[in-house]
Amino acid sequence: MKVLEERIRQDGRILSNTVLKVDSFLNHQVDTTLVLEIGREFARIFGGRPITKVLTIEASGIQFAMAASIALGVPFVYAKKKKAVTQEGEVYSAPVHSFTRGESYLVSISRQYLGPDDKVLIVDDFLATGAALVCLADIVQESGAELLGVGCVIEKSFQEGRGLLEERGIEVHALARIASMAPGEIVFIGNEAVIG
Amino acid sequence: MKVLEERIRQDGRILSNTVLKVDSFLNHQVDTTLVLEIGREFARIFGGRPITKVLTIEASGIQFAMAASIALGVPFVYAKKKKAVTQEGEVYSAPVHSFTRGESYLVSISRQYLGPDDKVLIVDDFLATGAALVCLADIVQESGAELLGVGCVIEKSFQEGRGLLEERGIEVHALARIASMAPGEIVFIGNEAVIG
Repeated sequence: MKVLEERIRQDGRILSNTVLKVDSFLNHQVDTTLVLEIGREFARIFGGRPITKVLTIEASGIQFAMAASIALGVPFVYAKKKKAVTQEGEVYSAPVHSFTRGESYLVSISRQYLGPDDKVLIVDDFLATGAALVCLADIVQESGAELLGVGCVIEKSFQEGRGLLEERGIEVHALARIASMAPGEIVFIGNEAVIG
Repeated sequence: MKVLEERIRQDGRILSNTVLKVDSFLNHQVDTTLVLEIGREFARIFGGRPITKVLTIEASGIQFAMAASIALGVPFVYAKKKKAVTQEGEVYSAPVHSFTRGESYLVSISRQYLGPDDKVLIVDDFLATGAALVCLADIVQESGAELLGVGCVIEKSFQEGRGLLEERGIEVHALARIASMAPGEIVFIGNEAVIG
């Protein structure tokens, strides 16, 4: 997605070979116009499939799941990190280790909102180690729902996330795929040929 | 907002005199159509003011801030809970105690995204104790930005949040104001007269 790659070049800040900050337009301050375009791009890529629900994980997946949800005309569900007091009843849950935050947390989804009737598109902001997305994919499988694909906004292609998902037979599309980066330079992988 | 009150009556689950779950349509599984309507209602109420930025707090404020942001045509910022490793540099921060989660956390906003040029609308899902919203209002004041109002989706009017905000001279609008509730019954306060 050219407009996204250009925006990353312009406003992203590369702090190291692995850390890219996009918090001026994607995941702290949010340019809603761009996020809505991202949602329409996910709908263009995945919209031919009979998706009933978009699934993401709090917090920074929410704006992209909502944008995809608007474009696809289906509800979205966001998995919670850590069980809250008001979240009673049965949940699907699995532990995830976040390298960004340097801590582990429990991902949970109420069983009421995911089941065998659902056909799911998972959406998230970053695909890097894949830890959170593999966890979501496992929860989808446990629920009996069908996973129709994973859409990520930014992929760090030099990390193992895509491989872990593809090993499970999951189709992955990322809108900006970073081959490599270092302070002052970023190399994107050419856009994939995509069948809408 | 009648459609919201009716939806709460239909799909909300009242667990006690203080705990209302709306996670089938607002803050776990999300009915995007309703959330976009909520955004338009905030824009109707506050849209006459020169808002430059919508502000909320992760996670469950994000979908409503995004909806308001779409309707108002301005970006939004979501405050983070707990400082992440990638969030370097100067931040505004303040501690908050969450009664829902039974724990304290640090709310932080990068100084880059809030300053004297901003005219801010704060949006959140619930107004109850007001702890998170008072914290955000204090951060807006510290930043030198102007706070033009607070919009909440659901107010538990029997708790002290509105009073704490109004004491600070802040104008508060909530789309569904709960006077009292108990399992099986909920009483809303009549809609306020609102000047657009």
